[in-house]
Amino acid sequence: MTEKIALTPATHTTPPAKFSHGVKKGNILQVAGQVGFLPAEEGKAPTPAGPTLREQTLQTFANVQAILEEGGATWDDVMMMRVYLTDVDHFAEMNEIYNAYFEEQGLKEAPAARTTVYVGLPKGLLIEIDALAVLS
Amino acid sequence: MTEKIALTPATHTTPPAKFSHGVKKGNILQVAGQVGFLPAEEGKAPTPAGPTLREQTLQTFANVQAILEEGGATWDDVMMMRVYLTDVDHFAEMNEIYNAYFEEQGLKEAPAARTTVYVGLPKGLLIEIDALAVLS
Amino acid sequence: MTEKIALTPATHTTPPAKFSHGVKKGNILQVAGQVGFLPAEEGKAPTPAGPTLREQTLQTFANVQAILEEGGATWDDVMMMRVYLTDVDHFAEMNEIYNAYFEEQGLKEAPAARTTVYVGLPKGLLIEIDALAVLS
Repeated sequence: MTEKIALTPATHTTPPAKFSHGVKKGNILQVAGQVGFLPAEEGKAPTPAGPTLREQTLQTFANVQAILEEGGATWDDVMMMRVYLTDVDHFAEMNEIYNAYFEEQGLKEAPAARTTVYVGLPKGLLIEIDALAVLS
Repeated sequence: MTEKIALTPATHTTPPAKFSHGVKKGNILQVAGQVGFLPAEEGKAPTPAGPTLREQTLQTFANVQAILEEGGATWDDVMMMRVYLTDVDHFAEMNEIYNAYFEEQGLKEAPAARTTVYVGLPKGLLIEIDALAVLS
Repeated sequence: MTEKIALTPATHTTPPAKFSHGVKKGNILQVAGQVGFLPAEEGKAPTPAGPTLREQTLQTFANVQAILEEGGATWDDVMMMRVYLTDVDHFAEMNEIYNAYFEEQGLKEAPAARTTVYVGLPKGLLIEIDALAVLS
């Protein structure tokens, strides 16, 4: 019997509904869609980093990473990242930020697979990312 | 050798192409994108519950659940739900319906991770949900 | 210790950022979002098959398949396909192409689950597909 465990970093804002920021069961870890919300402050509504794409993207990566770490995983364990942007014109800049970020992380193994599509997001949000990891 | 099994609840409308409403292989169960179609009636085109978001959402949950059950899983096994809405203004109402629904289900373990994005859907459909489950 | 392996078919264009066309770890294989790019030619920018939906869709299937094969998998191992279209009016035609393609492949087991949604894609692209496979 493998248990499903919720992954709830202390820095994260409370989800807007009954879902978990991340869950882990056996060797599978799923990170829920993360956006660029700054660390939670009591009594304050969730506030995105910003206003630039760079700030939101880096905060989103930090939010994904915190969930991975909560579950004992690292970026090296990530199999798939889904990147949701609101504007096709952000693709090149997001890729630059993305490349620089992962170069800094010094990944040991193959980079994850990725899909990027352009969707609507709540007002003020420019990027959302979720991730599937398989632990070793 | 683990076999892949199609999960096809009797109540479900025939998929519009050669795909399965759900598949299970080993301990992984994937539910295809479900919409709020009412139980299939012979000779009748698939018809969504409606016209409200509430009706469509509850029918969509029922359709996902039927596939989980067909595969011997429950909501407790769901790791990830992807919610596709057509309108950002539906987010708060969907969350209310979602919370009430899962409270009724009395989940034992951590709620699933979730990503919600806003996309286009075929005319008349307000919500689509798919789900990844890992069985114990 | 299971290693994550990048799946990089020789025919594929270089990804626009530090991600892999596919990755495999243990029995899980994830195919990144594939579009209808023709096989890579040195010194030439990635060029989609086209201009029809049929040509792009068939090239996209070929690109997904090459990654599956690179990882020792086949279409029979695919659990989930995510199809991103730019236009709801393409749904019926995509399904026809899809059905004919998979009939030709002569799948042995249950067809994969599938979700189709309508999103924005970079200019000139009509379809994007990613896939999750579980190997036997």
